[in-house]
Amino acid sequence: MDIHKCAAEAIGTFWLTFAGCGSAVIAAGFPQVGIGLVGVSLAFGLTVVTMAYAIGHVSGCHLNPAVTCGLAAGGRFPTHDIPAYVISQVIGSVVAATLLYAIATGAPDFDLAKGFAANGYGEHSPGHYGLISCLLAEVVLTMMFLFVIMGATHGKAPVGFAPLAIGLCLTLVHLVGIPITNLSVNPARSTGPALFVGGWAIAQLWLFWIAPILGGILGGILYRWVSDQPSALVTGMPPVAPAE
Amino acid sequence: MDIHKCAAEAIGTFWLTFAGCGSAVIAAGFPQVGIGLVGVSLAFGLTVVTMAYAIGHVSGCHLNPAVTCGLAAGGRFPTHDIPAYVISQVIGSVVAATLLYAIATGAPDFDLAKGFAANGYGEHSPGHYGLISCLLAEVVLTMMFLFVIMGATHGKAPVGFAPLAIGLCLTLVHLVGIPITNLSVNPARSTGPALFVGGWAIAQLWLFWIAPILGGILGGILYRWVSDQPSALVTGMPPVAPAE
Amino acid sequence: MDIHKCAAEAIGTFWLTFAGCGSAVIAAGFPQVGIGLVGVSLAFGLTVVTMAYAIGHVSGCHLNPAVTCGLAAGGRFPTHDIPAYVISQVIGSVVAATLLYAIATGAPDFDLAKGFAANGYGEHSPGHYGLISCLLAEVVLTMMFLFVIMGATHGKAPVGFAPLAIGLCLTLVHLVGIPITNLSVNPARSTGPALFVGGWAIAQLWLFWIAPILGGILGGILYRWVSDQPSALVTGMPPVAPAE
Amino acid sequence: MDIHKCAAEAIGTFWLTFAGCGSAVIAAGFPQVGIGLVGVSLAFGLTVVTMAYAIGHVSGCHLNPAVTCGLAAGGRFPTHDIPAYVISQVIGSVVAATLLYAIATGAPDFDLAKGFAANGYGEHSPGHYGLISCLLAEVVLTMMFLFVIMGATHGKAPVGFAPLAIGLCLTLVHLVGIPITNLSVNPARSTGPALFVGGWAIAQLWLFWIAPILGGILGGILYRWVSDQPSALVTGMPPVAPAE
Repeated sequence: MDIHKCAAEAIGTFWLTFAGCGSAVIAAGFPQVGIGLVGVSLAFGLTVVTMAYAIGHVSGCHLNPAVTCGLAAGGRFPTHDIPAYVISQVIGSVVAATLLYAIATGAPDFDLAKGFAANGYGEHSPGHYGLISCLLAEVVLTMMFLFVIMGATHGKAPVGFAPLAIGLCLTLVHLVGIPITNLSVNPARSTGPALFVGGWAIAQLWLFWIAPILGGILGGILYRWVSDQPSALVTGMPPVAPAE
Repeated sequence: MDIHKCAAEAIGTFWLTFAGCGSAVIAAGFPQVGIGLVGVSLAFGLTVVTMAYAIGHVSGCHLNPAVTCGLAAGGRFPTHDIPAYVISQVIGSVVAATLLYAIATGAPDFDLAKGFAANGYGEHSPGHYGLISCLLAEVVLTMMFLFVIMGATHGKAPVGFAPLAIGLCLTLVHLVGIPITNLSVNPARSTGPALFVGGWAIAQLWLFWIAPILGGILGGILYRWVSDQPSALVTGMPPVAPAE
Repeated sequence: MDIHKCAAEAIGTFWLTFAGCGSAVIAAGFPQVGIGLVGVSLAFGLTVVTMAYAIGHVSGCHLNPAVTCGLAAGGRFPTHDIPAYVISQVIGSVVAATLLYAIATGAPDFDLAKGFAANGYGEHSPGHYGLISCLLAEVVLTMMFLFVIMGATHGKAPVGFAPLAIGLCLTLVHLVGIPITNLSVNPARSTGPALFVGGWAIAQLWLFWIAPILGGILGGILYRWVSDQPSALVTGMPPVAPAE
Repeated sequence: MDIHKCAAEAIGTFWLTFAGCGSAVIAAGFPQVGIGLVGVSLAFGLTVVTMAYAIGHVSGCHLNPAVTCGLAAGGRFPTHDIPAYVISQVIGSVVAATLLYAIATGAPDFDLAKGFAANGYGEHSPGHYGLISCLLAEVVLTMMFLFVIMGATHGKAPVGFAPLAIGLCLTLVHLVGIPITNLSVNPARSTGPALFVGGWAIAQLWLFWIAPILGGILGGILYRWVSDQPSALVTGMPPVAPAE
């Protein structure tokens, strides 16, 4: 495993966690003019848009163990490289949470008990959704996220647009799911903040490793089956057939 | 009809309905930081952006009976394939509504009487718009949606941008029309939620099949007439003539 | 002048006025979840993004007398075609305002006295800005809008991105200027709503013809001077020089 | 140094400061429908998106002394051209602040004491963040901004998307950091408004020159190290390996 790829994954996941969770901790609830869940959703998506253009050509810009596992299940990533990628991603997330903590505690009204952007279910779900709802949501949203990643990076998809499609898909799943689990779909992103919140956040962390990785693998497999269509692959049909 | 194309349409329409309606049901009215109508509009649009990059090369990514019929009217889709596409789309929407119901009922304050993102007119219009206004809005907005789809996928339009143009057009029509009918422009998207709401939603469902399909057909025909301009087609003029 | 180009300009300006002003009239102030000025800014911009991909290859997609005049001043559009374009644009705007009026009056709480998205200065400025501020804002914002249009459609700019750059520039000028004049930068867009509001809106309409057209001409001239740099034109430098 | 490049940098930085700070001063807190921090973040980002497409081929569209210094540190810009670019950028920002002041004072409720979009720390931080938090945030956010700029303009990144990636990165850092320092990451943008606010704004201006330039240099160096991966550079791997 190349050290530059691991560094790229660590820096990229640092950015996803620092700027994504940072927008939630620092700006979402700012009085009167706060960015709300729309702003947080946009921020998470833009971390991926920006990094995918910056380091896509270095490491592939996974930034997420569920993406790494899903791409492996879809036949796009070598299984033996999974551990190095996942470890790099978790390191990036932990460093991000540490730096975010250092900055956020500089505000007089900072309160770790507000959650520090950790993910949770049941009484720790923002909308108090039960475990089954949270499990379903994380599995399905990660599955569809991987489905889009697989499709947008397919050789027949328009060249250069994958970072936009994938980043905006992360925005989309956040627009749906923040009230359910604060939204993870990414075990690395969940781990950094949980270490600082401790207690319940660590006790519930298992869900945000199992559900996204399961969903990611399902998405990789699902796309592989759907796209198994020789005629379209050969003809390279655009989204809608152009006028002749 | 290829099973993979039908599967792609079903999965894509599942995503449009699940994430679009899901954002409305779960996140639009979340206290203080809810995503509001801007977030819902963005979510619907992004379902199309993401899926068009993911499966555009498989099925064309219609996700909508009005799009399928409008493209047929515009000479871009074979008429005999309409039934298979429409059935796949409706199946996707019903599965999406079912899963969304399963997740949403996991919240203690879920209330089906809030509408579950079903479309309506008159007393069931969010802003209490009358039937004529609702009919006009659905016809015109779908007509313009198809006009943009026909144009953005025209052989002389820039390559690769159609998913962005089409998805953002869906965002745009939602920014205008949610207060009128909760916005459909898509009979499949309307059908799933209506089955769960029942009663008035099913009684009013006819409008959200007739108006979008009529609008879609008009849009396909209108674009075909406007673009009938040999000189531009031959010269391939960019949006504005570049400096010589 | 080709009838299809005129039709494209009329339909496109219809869309800009109907969906842009429609989002303001119908959805901006919707209780609790209204789209606000961010949503209206996004809507105006997306009318141009969507239409520029749809009809850019037909008419150039000006949709605005100030754009048509500014491009002529910048040497990109033949002066003798200005009248046909401007008349088509005004027709599109008037039809849009008529249809919007028909739809909006279907709501029980519609009130034309709220302004119907007409532009104004002084006591009819949303933030009560004086005439000089309104004049300055419309001239400068239209000038910069044309500067961006000229640049993004220059032969050395990346191919295919101009509709995004131009549409998002229209979003940007709205993010700044709605509180000042309700933002015009487009005489055609101002004319349709003013005819329905009557009285003060027609009395103040002169400003929204003179200021945007003056600004547009200045922008066309300014860009022409700035871009007069043979070495960059020849080498085709990307935004930032890539690594060798 | 070419006069056209300097003019482009001055006009572009004028646009960044005028429209970015203008959206904050004029529209952020507008009653009921104000654009809030999401709108301001979007506005700053769109100034760069629009200008990068318009003048990227003229001057490279830095619009920011920290970008100019960071690109020099990353080996992408000649050191001896830094002074001319920085002076042009500061001139653009001062002209922008002057024009914004002229327009904003046309509103009856304008109050310079609200800050006029100047940057600050401690008691002048919007969220009252301490100096260390503000310093950390400006250094890290500018570092990552430069990292993205370096990556998105790398020869192996998709062609034409850099303006989107870079502009949306500026939106992203604003989504995170406005409550901390009102967000600078750009010494030129900070200087214009500070001159009008005077007093504390000028006394605190040193931070918004030192921190962004330090962060920019670190980002340029960091990217250079991470991308030093011959195999990926040679093979030109897309973000995720496509299906074979």
